[in-house]
Amino acid sequence: MRMAELSERSGVAIPTIRFYLREGLLAPGRATSPNQAEYHSEHVRSLKLIRTLVEVGGLSLTRVREVLEFIRAKDSELYPVLGGVQYALMEPPAGIDDEAGRAARDQVDRLVADRGWQVRPDNPARVALAHALASLNRLGQDDVAAKLDLYADAAETLARREVPDLLGRDSVEAMAEGVIAYDVLGDALVSALRRLAQESVVTVHLRRTP
Amino acid sequence: MRMAELSERSGVAIPTIRFYLREGLLAPGRATSPNQAEYHSEHVRSLKLIRTLVEVGGLSLTRVREVLEFIRAKDSELYPVLGGVQYALMEPPAGIDDEAGRAARDQVDRLVADRGWQVRPDNPARVALAHALASLNRLGQDDVAAKLDLYADAAETLARREVPDLLGRDSVEAMAEGVIAYDVLGDALVSALRRLAQESVVTVHLRRTP
Repeated sequence: MRMAELSERSGVAIPTIRFYLREGLLAPGRATSPNQAEYHSEHVRSLKLIRTLVEVGGLSLTRVREVLEFIRAKDSELYPVLGGVQYALMEPPAGIDDEAGRAARDQVDRLVADRGWQVRPDNPARVALAHALASLNRLGQDDVAAKLDLYADAAETLARREVPDLLGRDSVEAMAEGVIAYDVLGDALVSALRRLAQESVVTVHLRRTP
Repeated sequence: MRMAELSERSGVAIPTIRFYLREGLLAPGRATSPNQAEYHSEHVRSLKLIRTLVEVGGLSLTRVREVLEFIRAKDSELYPVLGGVQYALMEPPAGIDDEAGRAARDQVDRLVADRGWQVRPDNPARVALAHALASLNRLGQDDVAAKLDLYADAAETLARREVPDLLGRDSVEAMAEGVIAYDVLGDALVSALRRLAQESVVTVHLRRTP
């Protein structure tokens, strides 16, 4: 297909596609003349993925590039690819070395150990979690921090349902794309649903006790 | 306290504090001389809140300003303040009027109706949820979209535990701050915990079936 059809089928504007081509995020099409190239369904798929990472995930182009590299390394083993994609989806969190930060890091390590979770020491979600806990501590939001186990239970329940479906996919590439879907879009689903459920519970509560 | 102590106690750099003062996000201190002002604990609190909104929530200054205005409207009624803060925490999502988008909007309306959730039609989380569902549809990630009810169950379970504690706080202002903590920091907790739990379940799964 030509550029115009690629744009229509992916929902990405032509100037943006040209930008992604220049930046090397999108593989070039097959040149059919000095000014034209032919694209195929793989390009549509890549563009939809980039769009999701940028628009929903809010990822920087550096992050997007890194995620795509893991997905395209088709010959790699499963575990490093899935972990690589998951880690690349997060901006590397800044280190935390004040007192509240160190206490939060310890709290995260304890949580992982207590639950027997098998998580590598370099998973950036550890630091991200510590940052959130340190913020709650600084703001004095103790009733939120006290629900850490409640949130961890929910996360575990979800992961036990998500992972078998993810690993049941028929190619490493499909699984790697699934990590993006479960993480970036899964976060968006959970975040939006929590807000809807919260408003509903508040409304019902206030009606009952005006 | 002077500016230097305000910076130390809030963890916000002095140039950033000056910027927030110029932008009107932070109330001015009490002038003690033409070049000096005196700040108090309320300023520390405000700065910590702004820092959380910017650093963890990734909010734009426009969003931060809007959130703070709702929190400072101390004389307002409870429901509009809580809803106002919650809605202000989200960038207004772009409209979606392609076919996948309209179908996703319908799906969200059905979900809310089926669950008997009491949610206003203008809650921006409705559109955010529809965006995520439309993205899943475009990417052909059907097994993720099929878990919508699983995610909604988790959201409801969490909200039923969160809201009573939120509404049990002793001032409207504390409740409004709680909305920020439960939404922005709660999202960060859930997102990080999901990634940790996912890695753990994948690891255990792959060890069992190499």
